[in-house]
Amino acid sequence: MKLVPLGDRVVLKQAEPEEKTQSGIILTTQSQEKPQQAEVIAVGPGGVVDGKEVTMQVKAGDKVIYSKYAGNEVKLDGEEYIIVRQNDILAVVE
Amino acid sequence: MKLVPLGDRVVLKQAEPEEKTQSGIILTTQSQEKPQQAEVIAVGPGGVVDGKEVTMQVKAGDKVIYSKYAGNEVKLDGEEYIIVRQNDILAVVE
Amino acid sequence: MKLVPLGDRVVLKQAEPEEKTQSGIILTTQSQEKPQQAEVIAVGPGGVVDGKEVTMQVKAGDKVIYSKYAGNEVKLDGEEYIIVRQNDILAVVE
Amino acid sequence: MKLVPLGDRVVLKQAEPEEKTQSGIILTTQSQEKPQQAEVIAVGPGGVVDGKEVTMQVKAGDKVIYSKYAGNEVKLDGEEYIIVRQNDILAVVE
Amino acid sequence: MKLVPLGDRVVLKQAEPEEKTQSGIILTTQSQEKPQQAEVIAVGPGGVVDGKEVTMQVKAGDKVIYSKYAGNEVKLDGEEYIIVRQNDILAVVE
Amino acid sequence: MKLVPLGDRVVLKQAEPEEKTQSGIILTTQSQEKPQQAEVIAVGPGGVVDGKEVTMQVKAGDKVIYSKYAGNEVKLDGEEYIIVRQNDILAVVE
Amino acid sequence: MKLVPLGDRVVLKQAEPEEKTQSGIILTTQSQEKPQQAEVIAVGPGGVVDGKEVTMQVKAGDKVIYSKYAGNEVKLDGEEYIIVRQNDILAVVE
Repeated sequence: MKLVPLGDRVVLKQAEPEEKTQSGIILTTQSQEKPQQAEVIAVGPGGVVDGKEVTMQVKAGDKVIYSKYAGNEVKLDGEEYIIVRQNDILAVVE
Repeated sequence: MKLVPLGDRVVLKQAEPEEKTQSGIILTTQSQEKPQQAEVIAVGPGGVVDGKEVTMQVKAGDKVIYSKYAGNEVKLDGEEYIIVRQNDILAVVE
Repeated sequence: MKLVPLGDRVVLKQAEPEEKTQSGIILTTQSQEKPQQAEVIAVGPGGVVDGKEVTMQVKAGDKVIYSKYAGNEVKLDGEEYIIVRQNDILAVVE
Repeated sequence: MKLVPLGDRVVLKQAEPEEKTQSGIILTTQSQEKPQQAEVIAVGPGGVVDGKEVTMQVKAGDKVIYSKYAGNEVKLDGEEYIIVRQNDILAVVE
Repeated sequence: MKLVPLGDRVVLKQAEPEEKTQSGIILTTQSQEKPQQAEVIAVGPGGVVDGKEVTMQVKAGDKVIYSKYAGNEVKLDGEEYIIVRQNDILAVVE
Repeated sequence: MKLVPLGDRVVLKQAEPEEKTQSGIILTTQSQEKPQQAEVIAVGPGGVVDGKEVTMQVKAGDKVIYSKYAGNEVKLDGEEYIIVRQNDILAVVE
Repeated sequence: MKLVPLGDRVVLKQAEPEEKTQSGIILTTQSQEKPQQAEVIAVGPGGVVDGKEVTMQVKAGDKVIYSKYAGNEVKLDGEEYIIVRQNDILAVVE
């Protein structure tokens, strides 16, 4: 199964957060700082979104930084993804 | 009876949530994580919505992921549906 | 007396909520789930509303589902009506 | 003195609320349900309001239903009026 | 010194609130109902404001009613003025 | 060093607030009423801001009244400035 | 690695806040006033953003003042950056 995003949506896969502290204590999800760096998995077709023409500027495989207040978390086949609008992607990391 | 959505609305039917945990405890609705995957049941005609031209991009039978903060729950003939705007559909699952 | 809605407004009449539970206990309005199904009583002329052209797509007699967060309740000659914008009507029930 | 509304404003005069219950108890303003039915007293010229062309569709003497969350209450020569935008008038009562 | 308003701003001078109750008790500003009637002192040039063409429809000397939730209070040479946008003026009193 | 504002921004310098009451008590910043009168220090070029053409109407040296809920306070070389959008300037004092 | 901002985004690097008070006490991040002055590190291409044409007016190396309520903090290779929209940059310091 794969996710095919609509409009200006982009499917991201976050880098794995460190599950343990240096001293080996397992952290709960709450205390882990959500990483904002992710890899682009799939990119919507763009086009007219909310009445405005959007051109997609990222592509699958790009490493990106996205806004920490954005995105919907979704789970598919046990894998977690974030779906954001392209406008919530702040920068590409090269 | 059937639901004929207006404008850019889409009628969805959620996958059934698991009613029991693995150990057999019956969960209340509150503690169940709302599944975000659903099947498209009916699609509005699109056209001018809020003064903007909308082209429908999903069709009946599509499996979709939708925003967990979106949608109106409606009950018809004992069946529960979610009606969302197409813009609240994040991706199609293929 | 009758209600003649302006612009994109639609006058609805809700289905009567069940006044008693199966065991005969009379429920207060609070504990009754507001039914979202209603009949269209009168439809505004549409036209330019908030600077946008609106075409009316429902007609008197239609059974509709409307958003539960929408609408103004009004009382006329002892009858209760809901006045909504057409955009708050989610689907027609056929 | 008279009120000449600007733009898409409409001056309304509410029907008098009943000052007593049937058993003769005088009610405070708080416990009285605000009547939403009113008579149109004066109508603004319409024209471009907030950058959008507005055509006035009500006239002095019309009985109207208006949104209960709308309007500015004003007092002139001891009389109370409500000034609303035409868009807050839901329907004309005929 | 005089105030020359910019854009669609209008400088108003409120009618003096009664400083004493009938029994002679001096009221604090809090307990006095803010009068909404005022005189137009100066009118901005209008023109393009927030990307929309605005034509000024009031003139110095007009007695107006303005929205009680609008306006900036300013003090100049010991005199108090209210500066509102023309859109916050509800009606002219003639 | 000098501040060169972008777009429709205007750099203002507030009149000095009185640091002492008449009886000589030194007031904290909190209890001092923020003066709304200021002098224009520098003016942005205007042009297209948020997709709308803006023409600058104030110039360096103007004494202006600005909205008390607007502006960013900035400190440069020990001097305090307020940077506002031209739209937050209510009137010029002549 | 480097950050390549999208659209009207600008990557900033803040001036280092003073880590100690004059008496040598180490301050926590909370009690330090966030400096609003920063250096431009990278500038997005501009173009159509949210349906509006944006022309970039700052360049790498510029010293700028930005709005203290704006920006996303990001960490890359142990360095901290702020990514803002150009519209959140108030002025260039020359």
